[in-house]
Amino acid sequence: MAKEKLVLASKNKGKIREFTEIFNNYEIIPYTDLGIDVDPDETGETFFDNALIKAKTISQICNLPVLADDSGLCVDALGGAPGVYSARFSGLGDDENNKKVLALLEGETNRKANFTCALVLYKPDGTVIGVEGKTYGTILHQVQGNNGFGYDVIFYSEDINKCFGLATPEEKNEVSHRARAIKKIKQYL
Amino acid sequence: MAKEKLVLASKNKGKIREFTEIFNNYEIIPYTDLGIDVDPDETGETFFDNALIKAKTISQICNLPVLADDSGLCVDALGGAPGVYSARFSGLGDDENNKKVLALLEGETNRKANFTCALVLYKPDGTVIGVEGKTYGTILHQVQGNNGFGYDVIFYSEDINKCFGLATPEEKNEVSHRARAIKKIKQYL
Repeated sequence: MAKEKLVLASKNKGKIREFTEIFNNYEIIPYTDLGIDVDPDETGETFFDNALIKAKTISQICNLPVLADDSGLCVDALGGAPGVYSARFSGLGDDENNKKVLALLEGETNRKANFTCALVLYKPDGTVIGVEGKTYGTILHQVQGNNGFGYDVIFYSEDINKCFGLATPEEKNEVSHRARAIKKIKQYL
Repeated sequence: MAKEKLVLASKNKGKIREFTEIFNNYEIIPYTDLGIDVDPDETGETFFDNALIKAKTISQICNLPVLADDSGLCVDALGGAPGVYSARFSGLGDDENNKKVLALLEGETNRKANFTCALVLYKPDGTVIGVEGKTYGTILHQVQGNNGFGYDVIFYSEDINKCFGLATPEEKNEVSHRARAIKKIKQYL
């Protein structure tokens, strides 16, 4: 029997490989393989909203179930910022984003933060399955290591007791927000 | 073992009884029994949006999983109207709503329409399960019968080959948009 098709709203080769391995009872299709050339605006107020916008927009073009994610860093003392603006917080890339967070937290003793990942499946019949995965920690006072990407180098994980910038991919994948979101959505697929 | 609690975002006694019977492996709690006194604005652009606003708002107050629905009539020749405005289409209640739809369709030969029901479960951990149920038919040229409510009396069901206004509750419940949404969401609960 042919596997059910599941379109992935990502161009990221790492994510495509990861999802193909995890959802091995589906035929995972990167949306760009369908000749779809849209980059839906991430105008939502939440990670869920953004993932839903992406998944729904692409599903309405290809008429297949689409899986999309959105994620970012939420810092308690900054009222959840940078949140949905994580990727574009400084407008100048990862290094400047990290500097901006560190500067905003200068002198702040509450350094609690979490990475959140929203993962949304949208089906052509209007079905929406959305989950959130979170991983908790604190914002360091300076960059540590150079593993991972984005805010990993200033995030000290309370699960593995080290900065994600110093963690191996395996260590991070055990406890990451995305891994936790994937684990949750698997129950519904 | 105690049943898992599931809060229902409805004050409607009929719905409360129906959901209690259908989701009999859950303890169904009408939200008003929790002393919650909110009526979230239905400001969404879709039935799904409105059901999600209701479910999420109430879940964030009571910290329990909440099930909410929103539904309405969508007329093809009216670009999907009255849609999310179904209940308040004329601002003057069911009779005037029906008159308004009939007046807008005067002389129109494409009378295709559907009732759509969005049903959304929101859990405190951010999980969203949303489904849509639809039932298809045509808009009559005049009111028939007086069973059901809302637009039932001008909707001719292609499933049961009669106007919902002439159908028994049992006949309507076999094919209704809400019955179909409930059937879908049961797979995920």
